[in-house]
Amino acid sequence: MQPVRNRVLPPQVRILGLDPGSLRTGYAVVETNAGRISYLVSGTIKTEGSSLAQRLQEIFLAVERLTQDFRPDEVAIEGVFMHRNADSALKLGQARGAALSATFAARPRVYEYAPRAVKLAVVGTGSAQKEQVQLMVKKLLNISGPLGADAADALAIALCHAHSRKVHSLITAGG
Amino acid sequence: MQPVRNRVLPPQVRILGLDPGSLRTGYAVVETNAGRISYLVSGTIKTEGSSLAQRLQEIFLAVERLTQDFRPDEVAIEGVFMHRNADSALKLGQARGAALSATFAARPRVYEYAPRAVKLAVVGTGSAQKEQVQLMVKKLLNISGPLGADAADALAIALCHAHSRKVHSLITAGG
Repeated sequence: MQPVRNRVLPPQVRILGLDPGSLRTGYAVVETNAGRISYLVSGTIKTEGSSLAQRLQEIFLAVERLTQDFRPDEVAIEGVFMHRNADSALKLGQARGAALSATFAARPRVYEYAPRAVKLAVVGTGSAQKEQVQLMVKKLLNISGPLGADAADALAIALCHAHSRKVHSLITAGG
Repeated sequence: MQPVRNRVLPPQVRILGLDPGSLRTGYAVVETNAGRISYLVSGTIKTEGSSLAQRLQEIFLAVERLTQDFRPDEVAIEGVFMHRNADSALKLGQARGAALSATFAARPRVYEYAPRAVKLAVVGTGSAQKEQVQLMVKKLLNISGPLGADAADALAIALCHAHSRKVHSLITAGG
């Protein structure tokens, strides 16, 4: 049997997952290659500045550095569709604006996912607890060491996007 | 009479005033020099992208360009202390985060002013109408042509900061 030479493999894609907050921003980089997902890096940017402008700058510089180091093709971020109150929404919005802006130099495509969609994609239920998300992310990516909650959330968003683009490519191929 | 040679003049300072919004972002650059305030530029960034990420990128790139062209020493922005609702606060927050992030490369000092303080500084009353702000800004800076509402707001914020730093330097000199 001849190898299928002209089979179009999905290209290698780097995904940066972001879970922004004014005090803690989770980040994660994964790579999808022919349907396989590999873990590259994850962590939490903890801001220390006394003013919001200082904290935004810390977030911006850290994500800018990540963008330079990993050159993501796509950015996945949690869409915020419901807010507890306007004050926290404003802080979250600014952190989100700073984190996203720091990726623009790499000209990535940006995708948003609802929190429920992220949990559904990773755990299988939209009402999953934080601990379940953490556990499943570690299992799916074979991470053995400790994993912070913010990093786990960012990885979950990146994984959700990786799954979603896989499904999308299967649909496209099938159609 | 000998000229006062060792009199310390306040250094020339460039101020970028920003009035961010996801659809329209007002900007203004003024320069203070020995207590005089000169007008350099003002305008409105009107975003056209269909997604919020695209609009944030438009804001970021336009303010980044302004920052490169004018190298502001200080950035003045309206502090948001009350919000109508969480959804608009989140959009405003992201626009604010993107606009501020675009100035960080110039490492400016960032100052926030309450909307009432801006109106008080420019018009003399904290409850001034938009048209009064527009009129006073044009008068104070000898602007004869038409001036958009967003540009006028950004100029008002820059002027408020210029006045505030003048008062501050007088207090410091007096003390």
